[in-house]
Amino acid sequence: MNNFEFYCPTRVLFGKGQIAKLSELVDKSKKILMTYGGGSIKKNGVYEQVKNALQGYNLIEFGGIEPNPKYETLMKAVDIVKKEGIDFILSVGGGSTLDGTKFIALASKYDGDDAYDAIMIRGEHPSSAVEFADVITLPATGSEMNNGGVISRLSTNEKLAFHNPLCFPKFSIIDPQVTFSLPVRQTINGIVDTFVHTMEFNCTYDVNSPLQDIWAMGILRTLIQEAPKVLANPEDYEARANIFWCATCGLNYWISVGVPQDWSTHMIGHELTAFYGIDHGQSLAIILPRLLKNQKLNKSAKLAKIAKEVFNIEEKDPLKASDIAIDKIEEFFNSIGMKTKLSDYGIDAKEAAEKIRDRFASRNVAFGERGLITADVAYDVVLKA
Amino acid sequence: MNNFEFYCPTRVLFGKGQIAKLSELVDKSKKILMTYGGGSIKKNGVYEQVKNALQGYNLIEFGGIEPNPKYETLMKAVDIVKKEGIDFILSVGGGSTLDGTKFIALASKYDGDDAYDAIMIRGEHPSSAVEFADVITLPATGSEMNNGGVISRLSTNEKLAFHNPLCFPKFSIIDPQVTFSLPVRQTINGIVDTFVHTMEFNCTYDVNSPLQDIWAMGILRTLIQEAPKVLANPEDYEARANIFWCATCGLNYWISVGVPQDWSTHMIGHELTAFYGIDHGQSLAIILPRLLKNQKLNKSAKLAKIAKEVFNIEEKDPLKASDIAIDKIEEFFNSIGMKTKLSDYGIDAKEAAEKIRDRFASRNVAFGERGLITADVAYDVVLKA
Repeated sequence: MNNFEFYCPTRVLFGKGQIAKLSELVDKSKKILMTYGGGSIKKNGVYEQVKNALQGYNLIEFGGIEPNPKYETLMKAVDIVKKEGIDFILSVGGGSTLDGTKFIALASKYDGDDAYDAIMIRGEHPSSAVEFADVITLPATGSEMNNGGVISRLSTNEKLAFHNPLCFPKFSIIDPQVTFSLPVRQTINGIVDTFVHTMEFNCTYDVNSPLQDIWAMGILRTLIQEAPKVLANPEDYEARANIFWCATCGLNYWISVGVPQDWSTHMIGHELTAFYGIDHGQSLAIILPRLLKNQKLNKSAKLAKIAKEVFNIEEKDPLKASDIAIDKIEEFFNSIGMKTKLSDYGIDAKEAAEKIRDRFASRNVAFGERGLITADVAYDVVLKA
Repeated sequence: MNNFEFYCPTRVLFGKGQIAKLSELVDKSKKILMTYGGGSIKKNGVYEQVKNALQGYNLIEFGGIEPNPKYETLMKAVDIVKKEGIDFILSVGGGSTLDGTKFIALASKYDGDDAYDAIMIRGEHPSSAVEFADVITLPATGSEMNNGGVISRLSTNEKLAFHNPLCFPKFSIIDPQVTFSLPVRQTINGIVDTFVHTMEFNCTYDVNSPLQDIWAMGILRTLIQEAPKVLANPEDYEARANIFWCATCGLNYWISVGVPQDWSTHMIGHELTAFYGIDHGQSLAIILPRLLKNQKLNKSAKLAKIAKEVFNIEEKDPLKASDIAIDKIEEFFNSIGMKTKLSDYGIDAKEAAEKIRDRFASRNVAFGERGLITADVAYDVVLKA
């Protein structure tokens, strides 16, 4: 395996009723800003549970963080943090609320003119951040156990990622019961997102990392096994718990240690979402099978392992095994109701391919574990989608 | 799966040449105590690498920490820490040196009369500890990524474990190359120790935790696959790296989240070591197969999974599958040169069984995931060994 560094100081509290532990986790002397999104937490009971657990605390609320958190919105929270002397932020919601909260925590310690320019563009990060933690309600982004976030800026139409060692949540509370009421579409998107994260962390070339491979493929196997259960019975606690733990483990970098990665499916998918407004999970489901077909020769050692470990296929020829694995992945997506062709979403493949080729070419980028996913390769991938 | 809490703030640096990063990890203003054991680090080049990396640092050495670190020895280091104003301890060696260092770090902040009584017996821990980190040289105890330690006291003939949230190393450097020169016996003991840790974390009753099961069984599979390679070629870097990563993952509690545990093999094994002086790894290899046979009915769901996942055995009857799995585990131990019968070590089974029964009965203890391993059960287990 390759050399690696791993660090994740977040305390995870997982399971039924863990929200009630909030009062043990947050000091009563803290002045808290509770951040949340569009209000789904008021419908599913999470808002009430949090407020009950924090009765008697000095707590201000900041709702309305968007699904793709906007810099303009987040800066309103930063103003509150500074004005009110907030010293603890509690994110209650999905990955977008938490990503936004990470930015608020950092930007609140920045004293210059434009926190976005400093943090997102110039990478000039403050040397401290306001302490923060979360009650996470959506299994998808893994933000509850990593130090990254994705922020959009309306005025410049940008969407960028940031990472900072100060942006690990102090703790993350994961109660799978809060996902019982998730809309089916979000459940499916989260499963696909987790599946694709895991593939992008692992499905590259083989560096003799058997333990990491088994773990990554274990996430894939578990998703395939548990997804039909949550779709058949949204209140199946065990299945919801297994799916949520897969999502957290899919992006806490534990599976990534010592192995090369390939995030080109996400890079192409982001453009599809930007151009056509389809869901993030949908964009990944469209791109992944086509990207894998395109890169089959380079990824065949891992794809053959996936065929065997994940799909129980005994096929000695690694290229044939790779084809089977790719087809099985697409079948899995389809089986849980996720459509995988551009035409399913009314998108013209040629037009999309040209747009993405032009954008990548103008930025002169190349993605993938060996930098092979150029603008022209992306064109082929999207055209075949 | 069960509810769980997970927390591990240790930064891990894994791979070739990572010891050279010490100067990036430790502030030059620190006054360092470097702790080590019997001097093997002077033979295998680790001592020199550490000293080179920390040239120009204010550093005092404390060698001679024993394989089972003694309170009496460690208190000499505590005196140095207090007298010299040490504010960083660097453990360079195996799990015993690191366990001892954890105790030194904690006891140095204790101002009362008897740090052993306070920390090990009464559980009155100081509210801070001296900052510490490690260069770990032995794949076995997982101490490099957890907050526990085992300390012996000569004057009372005791050997006890402690845990403290302050006792996570600030960082752990794992360079698998340092294990090239390990004696074969230590290599084998470490592999068996890791195998048994993993079994004790996972092989209980099934709580629907497919991801954790796959991960635990992944460690077992990887050990079985890589062990013959390191025995055939002690300088096989890839195999050494995989074995070391298994050892760390075998006791960093990552595999244990949400699943019941059973540490009775360790409890019985500890007594065998205490009575007869055999190695820790040897005691585990003797007890595990017999304990599993004894508890086959209670553990058959997991044992059948192990038969399938680890040993590739398709056997539908869970009890038959369990028998096969247990035999295969013992065969694996034997195949790497680890003997698994008391008679192999010149120990009379009946005498050992009686001694252990008496000791457990006098303490009125019962171990295992359901408290079923009473003194009488331990007698049966040891008798059959």
